[in-house]
Amino acid sequence: MSGEGGEWGIGNRALSSPAPIAIASSLILNDRYLTGFNITFPSIETMKIAIAQLNPTIGNLTANAQQILDAAQQAAGQNIDLLLTPELSLCGYPPRDLLLDPSFIEAMGRQLQQLAQKLPPNLMVLVGTAIENEQSTTEGGKSLFNSIALLEGGEIRQVFHKRLLPTYDVFDEHRYFEPDGETNYFTVSPRSNSQTSIKIGVTICEDLWNDEDFWGKRLYRCNPIADLAAAEVDFIVNLSASPYWVGKQQLREEMLHHTATRYGKPIVYANQVGGNDDLIFDGSSVAIDRAGEVVCRGLSCQTDFVEFAFDASTGDFLPGSVAPMPQCPEEEIWGALVLGVRDYARKCGFSKIVLGLSGGIDSALVAAIAAEAIGAPNVLGVLMSSPYTSKASVDDALALAENLGMATHTLEIAELMGGFDRTLADLFAGTESGVAEENLQSRIRGNLLMAIANKFGHLLLSTGNKSEMAVGYCTLYGDMDGGLAAIADVPKTRVFSLCKWLNTRQPGREIIPENIIVKPPSAELKPNQVDCDSLPPYEILDDILQRLIHHHQSPEEIVAVGFDRDTVKQIVRLVRRAEFKRRQAPPGLKITDRAFGTGWRMPIAANRQPPSV
Amino acid sequence: MSGEGGEWGIGNRALSSPAPIAIASSLILNDRYLTGFNITFPSIETMKIAIAQLNPTIGNLTANAQQILDAAQQAAGQNIDLLLTPELSLCGYPPRDLLLDPSFIEAMGRQLQQLAQKLPPNLMVLVGTAIENEQSTTEGGKSLFNSIALLEGGEIRQVFHKRLLPTYDVFDEHRYFEPDGETNYFTVSPRSNSQTSIKIGVTICEDLWNDEDFWGKRLYRCNPIADLAAAEVDFIVNLSASPYWVGKQQLREEMLHHTATRYGKPIVYANQVGGNDDLIFDGSSVAIDRAGEVVCRGLSCQTDFVEFAFDASTGDFLPGSVAPMPQCPEEEIWGALVLGVRDYARKCGFSKIVLGLSGGIDSALVAAIAAEAIGAPNVLGVLMSSPYTSKASVDDALALAENLGMATHTLEIAELMGGFDRTLADLFAGTESGVAEENLQSRIRGNLLMAIANKFGHLLLSTGNKSEMAVGYCTLYGDMDGGLAAIADVPKTRVFSLCKWLNTRQPGREIIPENIIVKPPSAELKPNQVDCDSLPPYEILDDILQRLIHHHQSPEEIVAVGFDRDTVKQIVRLVRRAEFKRRQAPPGLKITDRAFGTGWRMPIAANRQPPSV
Repeated sequence: MSGEGGEWGIGNRALSSPAPIAIASSLILNDRYLTGFNITFPSIETMKIAIAQLNPTIGNLTANAQQILDAAQQAAGQNIDLLLTPELSLCGYPPRDLLLDPSFIEAMGRQLQQLAQKLPPNLMVLVGTAIENEQSTTEGGKSLFNSIALLEGGEIRQVFHKRLLPTYDVFDEHRYFEPDGETNYFTVSPRSNSQTSIKIGVTICEDLWNDEDFWGKRLYRCNPIADLAAAEVDFIVNLSASPYWVGKQQLREEMLHHTATRYGKPIVYANQVGGNDDLIFDGSSVAIDRAGEVVCRGLSCQTDFVEFAFDASTGDFLPGSVAPMPQCPEEEIWGALVLGVRDYARKCGFSKIVLGLSGGIDSALVAAIAAEAIGAPNVLGVLMSSPYTSKASVDDALALAENLGMATHTLEIAELMGGFDRTLADLFAGTESGVAEENLQSRIRGNLLMAIANKFGHLLLSTGNKSEMAVGYCTLYGDMDGGLAAIADVPKTRVFSLCKWLNTRQPGREIIPENIIVKPPSAELKPNQVDCDSLPPYEILDDILQRLIHHHQSPEEIVAVGFDRDTVKQIVRLVRRAEFKRRQAPPGLKITDRAFGTGWRMPIAANRQPPSV
Repeated sequence: MSGEGGEWGIGNRALSSPAPIAIASSLILNDRYLTGFNITFPSIETMKIAIAQLNPTIGNLTANAQQILDAAQQAAGQNIDLLLTPELSLCGYPPRDLLLDPSFIEAMGRQLQQLAQKLPPNLMVLVGTAIENEQSTTEGGKSLFNSIALLEGGEIRQVFHKRLLPTYDVFDEHRYFEPDGETNYFTVSPRSNSQTSIKIGVTICEDLWNDEDFWGKRLYRCNPIADLAAAEVDFIVNLSASPYWVGKQQLREEMLHHTATRYGKPIVYANQVGGNDDLIFDGSSVAIDRAGEVVCRGLSCQTDFVEFAFDASTGDFLPGSVAPMPQCPEEEIWGALVLGVRDYARKCGFSKIVLGLSGGIDSALVAAIAAEAIGAPNVLGVLMSSPYTSKASVDDALALAENLGMATHTLEIAELMGGFDRTLADLFAGTESGVAEENLQSRIRGNLLMAIANKFGHLLLSTGNKSEMAVGYCTLYGDMDGGLAAIADVPKTRVFSLCKWLNTRQPGREIIPENIIVKPPSAELKPNQVDCDSLPPYEILDDILQRLIHHHQSPEEIVAVGFDRDTVKQIVRLVRRAEFKRRQAPPGLKITDRAFGTGWRMPIAANRQPPSV
């Protein structure tokens, strides 16, 4: 098959296309990239397009280039003409401060050249890469562009730079990149003169996200999609690395529907997949036809290779395979969390996971995620009973482990608690037992888990949920210990709904023991302690937190909705006071539009006003 | 005195000044702010200017406004005409994500209005504040400007927006602010017609830092200083919040000298002072005359109020008081670290500090800083001996505490080590004692220190230095525990030089016992352990780290300079591998141009290439 090749080549724009195309390429590439070539392809009616929904490892240029090459060889075998890879597919997204090292940028440039030379013939490949802005030293501006290289015929044929640079939430693109002003497209001409050439608009992620009609406002002054429509492109490609949050794929497809129908242009959206530290990329790449309908969709939270076609005679996409979307938020979040844990472990070089099993619902959920991510035999649960641990908690933890098929080990911490008490007896003489002693229990457990992690080279997962992290109902250097905080962005109410959903996944197979779901949550750090001694019910707490954290509502606004003033006051105070804990938390997998972590940048030594309510 | 007032007022630009002035103010302020007023001042030859070098608390609008008001009253008492405060003086710099909450922005606006009304008459005050960009919803762009408000006569008379927005290192200004395109100045007219009016150029921090002559390149496309020179202003004011790093004041004054002489314009530079989390602002505000000479300088690392004058007849500044600069890097760094610790404690509400005293040089230095910051009687040193602790270490720690006049408490950790060994005996059976056990010792100490901190409400300072943090020669949840990492940006070689300098500060008074300085550094986590068993000598390590971290040199480049290839390879590997530890470190006081922390954004689950050497 591969000898037959693709059917479309890049037009010689020097002859046929005087319109502005990727002018900036002249700044960084040799003249030979600017000449353009007429490639001889048989004349056909359709252009075959594929999306390689790849999972790169940040910084691993060799392995990432190999992934692109593998996809290209698959594409060639299927007579694909145009292959799309995600944003910055060569270095992985987000490369963060690796971009500040010149040797890394040079290595990326070399890797791109080598990749171009290795690609199969008769295939156009769009690769995401950082490219130097050589004007920057004389004219000002950042030293890099976030770019796409069009590789074909052993060469870098054209480069396109991102125009809209997100610098909010977890995104820091203005830290590294200069925005480009060009309207980016390339023209592909068939050999036969009977066919018109095809003009393909090229955008990168955020370039697509500035439709004032859809959002009700603009984030940036220009709209690259409107510019491409004005340039009369036939269809638009978008290379993305769009992090997951719950409901985002639905939003993306609504936006793509709006944009495709508003401008009457088919759009193909190629998204990265994989977990990179706190960020989970969910793939779900799509092709949208002029009517705004999905004609092709890649898998959610898995690598994929999907194909479809552009019909030059109708100016629209032809259908390809359409993977189903997750059926409920729980299924969607579950897939994301499993991917996030699996990739963090894999990309950091861990093959085993250890975690503390308290018998509570948080550690139960994390254990289930870990077991799905790397296999139950590779997960060790450690039970660490104190005199305050109920028998029910031990039973529940053991039942969970049995359900999952994972090993457990039980350690008693009473002796160590006594040891700390004795060691501190002189200093603490005359004081009441309180938070210091409660934290000690949590920290003894943290030490034991870290000792096991260090001894056997396991990855420790922490098990705190978002509600706890918000109000500081967690112990720094205790239960917060871990390489990754698997559910740090999952509110407690969602922890419950995830566990309930998990038990319905395979009819008749209980994963989370029922008692774990129905009993009142407790830290068990003192006799008869339950969470609602210190906190409002989780339904109320999570609602207030959602308003405070996600909707930026003021305490007064939250009270005005009908919440109890003292409760709101308490929550606001707790959230602000816990900033120092969150600053030292492990990376937490982001599943909402505002997670603590990379996208949460709060001062600690502050005295925020208005003070409260 | 105050009844006599200042001698200059703001010109009625509607009548006298058709040139472009702060056009953007029309977007956010009522018409009444645009009208302008002729204020009647007696005619004099000089305009008296003062700099209030303030130390705001982030977010505390009421207290910060009160500081400005206090300074204004002092200014009125000294017949000052124009008072400068630092960048964002109303909310403190950096306010970070507090800026994302609309209620905070509204509160700032109200506070600014109230402040304007309370100010004494006949005084112009420049206040740093965030101002809404109301065009953003329709035209795109960020929703805020980083602005200066000119307050006078009970009103907000004019506003000016920052043009160059740093988005690198610790700065995230593009996250919050829209850059402005205007050339910002205001005109002050005396009552007497015999005098010409004075045109004052207004810039904010980064606006000053883009002279391609001085830097050899540009960071931004425009240079606001060149624009102001073209607009023929008489002098330029700059409101700054410029974080400290060693040698920065010298650099600032060289740059100001260059700029003042290049454009023939006097410049006054008003800098914030104080510690805000990891950032230390060192003040050292200066006024520079047309010859580029310092005519006035505020104190380093202390609040200050300094005054000087502009002579309308010569078009230049007249001298004021000039505070001396620190005499050596050690004196400079010492002042910064003391301020950083003092302000973190104060602004977080701590009156006491606790730290572990190992008898080593790092904890000795941190103890000395803490004692200077909040007074030795408020500092508790805790000695936590293990069987591997030498008698010399205990003696050295006690001698240090005696020199400083601080209390100590001694705890033995052998029993707890035994307790952990017994608890883990089954699980660890058949393994060699190693890093897991060493880390346990460190974590037992961390737990004890945190228990004390929790029990008594003390601030725990961690004592790790930058060299350790770089190569991961430190224990997460152990010696890394703390609310603030006081010397996390101080390389080990600098720790030594600081301690030596400290002992020369008062002739005949030894602060750091000589033995602490001369003995080989050791973690004392196993018998006869010294740091150079695992690491190259600190002179070599620090040199390699400086090249790697600060100069972005590649491993190959470092080897090419003459360093041993295996050593470089080991260091590069260690630095990359320790990323997960640094991510969970407490805020560390920044004293170099590249600190781990806010300005260091590295992926963890990465496989950086080129892999090494």
